[in-house]
Amino acid sequence: MLEFRKKVYRQLEPTAWRRKGLSPTNHFLVYLIIIAVIEAVLDTEPVISTGRELLLNNIEFGLGLIFLVEYVARAWVAVENPRYQKYRFPRLRYLVSPMAIIDLLAILPALFAFGGASSLVLRFFRVLRMLRLAKLGRTSKAFKLLRAAFVQKRHEFALILGMLMVTILIAGSMLYLAEGEAQPDKFGSIPRAMWWAIVTLTTVGYGDAFPITPLGKFLAGAIAIMGVMLIALPTGLFAASFTEAMEKERDEDAAEEEEKAAKA
Amino acid sequence: MLEFRKKVYRQLEPTAWRRKGLSPTNHFLVYLIIIAVIEAVLDTEPVISTGRELLLNNIEFGLGLIFLVEYVARAWVAVENPRYQKYRFPRLRYLVSPMAIIDLLAILPALFAFGGASSLVLRFFRVLRMLRLAKLGRTSKAFKLLRAAFVQKRHEFALILGMLMVTILIAGSMLYLAEGEAQPDKFGSIPRAMWWAIVTLTTVGYGDAFPITPLGKFLAGAIAIMGVMLIALPTGLFAASFTEAMEKERDEDAAEEEEKAAKA
Amino acid sequence: MLEFRKKVYRQLEPTAWRRKGLSPTNHFLVYLIIIAVIEAVLDTEPVISTGRELLLNNIEFGLGLIFLVEYVARAWVAVENPRYQKYRFPRLRYLVSPMAIIDLLAILPALFAFGGASSLVLRFFRVLRMLRLAKLGRTSKAFKLLRAAFVQKRHEFALILGMLMVTILIAGSMLYLAEGEAQPDKFGSIPRAMWWAIVTLTTVGYGDAFPITPLGKFLAGAIAIMGVMLIALPTGLFAASFTEAMEKERDEDAAEEEEKAAKA
Amino acid sequence: MLEFRKKVYRQLEPTAWRRKGLSPTNHFLVYLIIIAVIEAVLDTEPVISTGRELLLNNIEFGLGLIFLVEYVARAWVAVENPRYQKYRFPRLRYLVSPMAIIDLLAILPALFAFGGASSLVLRFFRVLRMLRLAKLGRTSKAFKLLRAAFVQKRHEFALILGMLMVTILIAGSMLYLAEGEAQPDKFGSIPRAMWWAIVTLTTVGYGDAFPITPLGKFLAGAIAIMGVMLIALPTGLFAASFTEAMEKERDEDAAEEEEKAAKA
Repeated sequence: MLEFRKKVYRQLEPTAWRRKGLSPTNHFLVYLIIIAVIEAVLDTEPVISTGRELLLNNIEFGLGLIFLVEYVARAWVAVENPRYQKYRFPRLRYLVSPMAIIDLLAILPALFAFGGASSLVLRFFRVLRMLRLAKLGRTSKAFKLLRAAFVQKRHEFALILGMLMVTILIAGSMLYLAEGEAQPDKFGSIPRAMWWAIVTLTTVGYGDAFPITPLGKFLAGAIAIMGVMLIALPTGLFAASFTEAMEKERDEDAAEEEEKAAKA
Repeated sequence: MLEFRKKVYRQLEPTAWRRKGLSPTNHFLVYLIIIAVIEAVLDTEPVISTGRELLLNNIEFGLGLIFLVEYVARAWVAVENPRYQKYRFPRLRYLVSPMAIIDLLAILPALFAFGGASSLVLRFFRVLRMLRLAKLGRTSKAFKLLRAAFVQKRHEFALILGMLMVTILIAGSMLYLAEGEAQPDKFGSIPRAMWWAIVTLTTVGYGDAFPITPLGKFLAGAIAIMGVMLIALPTGLFAASFTEAMEKERDEDAAEEEEKAAKA
Repeated sequence: MLEFRKKVYRQLEPTAWRRKGLSPTNHFLVYLIIIAVIEAVLDTEPVISTGRELLLNNIEFGLGLIFLVEYVARAWVAVENPRYQKYRFPRLRYLVSPMAIIDLLAILPALFAFGGASSLVLRFFRVLRMLRLAKLGRTSKAFKLLRAAFVQKRHEFALILGMLMVTILIAGSMLYLAEGEAQPDKFGSIPRAMWWAIVTLTTVGYGDAFPITPLGKFLAGAIAIMGVMLIALPTGLFAASFTEAMEKERDEDAAEEEEKAAKA
Repeated sequence: MLEFRKKVYRQLEPTAWRRKGLSPTNHFLVYLIIIAVIEAVLDTEPVISTGRELLLNNIEFGLGLIFLVEYVARAWVAVENPRYQKYRFPRLRYLVSPMAIIDLLAILPALFAFGGASSLVLRFFRVLRMLRLAKLGRTSKAFKLLRAAFVQKRHEFALILGMLMVTILIAGSMLYLAEGEAQPDKFGSIPRAMWWAIVTLTTVGYGDAFPITPLGKFLAGAIAIMGVMLIALPTGLFAASFTEAMEKERDEDAAEEEEKAAKA
């Protein structure tokens, strides 16, 4: 039994897997998560789900059962994990870890029917199923890289975010002054004008709010030209930082693979 | 006859051409392809084509005949190509190569009339003629460069595409929760909200879908600011990778030219 | 008393603070400024302020009083500042410095009621309160960095701004020619067409003005493709310049900290 | 007289001016050109020009006279220019140079009244006055830099423009197939769909044309994500190339100044 538990642990925990890449079980789970997320997305679209409720509910229930088995198995093998062994109740410690709680939240909606639930509650539980995406984070390097790239330049990002907020505030205040009279529903308060400022400075430009007075157009033009520069700042920083993190990761990977090869 | 076939082969196959640049035949074909593509584009516009059907059909038929001659000639000289000589039927092998099949598909619509065809079939055959563009790939370095730049950073692109998908999913799910009630036709399902997410994160911002509730606007603003950063990532990577591939190509070209000069 | 004034001076003047980071007083003021700005922003939104006028006015008045005390204290300790000691009336000299005038302008709207004021005057005084943001500049490195990044490349920016103006002018003139007849309200004069040019070249694209004639669409397409390149120029320059300024700043900071540590 | 002509020549020809910067005459002309362009822009706006026709016409006529004097003076001193001295009729040679012809075209509209002219002719002559901007090119380094940056990477730009055209063609063809039936006025021909493709790939996104069918939205989403990458390519290239040209220019300037100083 102990031998079997150790085997299951090695299959489930990516850091305990001795060979290159993912274990067969985790490989299978990654595909299953992708299928479950696609199913959950399509399930919300009435054009697709109407008339297929039973089929979709059964798929959902089946996927939910498999993820429940995974959840229980992970709790069972938590005692093998050196990270939890130092605690008195390793399994309980695992169950209250953020990852396990997210797992549980993603499983729950699949196992219960929400016949009498209101539209908003239903929508909320449907979105809960999207949390399965977080399960990918356990086996994926992408999240690790993103985090490393962010952490490395966190001071720069905080600074830039601050500047951006100030720019949005100033841009919003100027247009509130210039257009507030002419378009009170769109520029009649600074928060309303700030929505315009965000949409303009990110160059999204939906066209739901734009200046119509000559002064407003002049200010908006100057803001658009200046702001485009500021918004582009984090872009360059982040791209550079991400590339760096990626190269570092690859070097570490190569070293790890060599180590594993030496052991085997 | 064999001597003539060898000459034709050298004219048609860019890698067999010994002098700098393209052979006269391929030069002529490049111009012909550009003319044929422009003709095919203009042919679909009723304002231009109405009243000129006969003229356009004749041009189309004439161009189709020349490309048919080229197609047959390429099959005929395939036996000269070292790449196909190792097969038992070099010409048949050439005819089932992807390039030859694309050639045939692009020729077909020019040679047949589609009097009784439905609108969709007609449109499909018209677009088939665009495949002539792929013929340019045979003589163009642009495609080679693009491919090299892509291949070199394919792991990074796969990773970024994954992150992008997750971002679009999360952004869509959030707006589905916040705006689904207020605008069911635009945010009433996750796929619908994902269309909004793509249009916003790429900063295209058509204005066909945008949040109207305060919570929706707040979330959309945060998503726009954060997302612009993520979308900009592949940009920097790709630009760097493309420049690198271009420089490498130029060095190789210079070496090749020197070699040819030494031979001559 | 002199001892106390010296203490207050060290608390208020960031350059006189001997330890790392900000003094407790300046820390407290930074939070207060952020709260005051958020309050001022929300105050302009009728959905939030209606029915809460008294509460918001009291918060505003309280914050105004604290900032008034700060204003008086800063004037009182100005005699300690070596920068103003060389003048005959150091306090008066401080009071006419741009920073002190901005401080006063930001305090005034909080202390007076504008019962009978017209809508535009009211809006103007509300926006005046946003000047509190400038107070952050006293303790923030962000503004210092932004300025350094800008000053270092000011010739390039002037040049690019000039090119941009010329591009906007040319783009506007072309569309004025092509679309002026068809859409006189949007392209009937060069200034009107220039609004379209700015919205297009920054890729904001509200959709309030776009060409509808074939010639206008052709020109607009070419302008959009070419212009996107030009607009992107300052972006790269500024990002590079900002990163440089940031690194220089960090080196200087490290040196300063070491010096302070050596003194203590 | 000859002495005076030499002096005028040194004042008008920037390359003949021995001291740093521009000659006083050229300085004055630069300001005059900027004023004349602003006047010409505002003149087209009915809100500004209505009721001020006489004033604007007089300003226009006065500026036109000054530019005419400049034109004649430049022709008169052309014999001093080593570039034209080798021709038999240096002045005639100068008058048929592109720069002189542009000068003349920009002067003409100011000197004639167009009472009976149609709206389009009037608009055309108004835009002709914008050619005064080209006069700035004579004294400005910006155009020189732009040209250098472009020339240095011309092969890359040609390649990228080609790829861009192919991408626009493919994107347009795909949406023509997917949306042609549903929205014949916007996607009913490939040229129409290409307008959508340009507006989307440059991320301008006016919102005058967007897909409404599920297939169209899916294709448009994929095109937007992929295309944003390609469009961003020339941006990086051009920014790098421009910075390089700028640095080279500065080095050359420094060398030239030293030479002048050594001469003086």
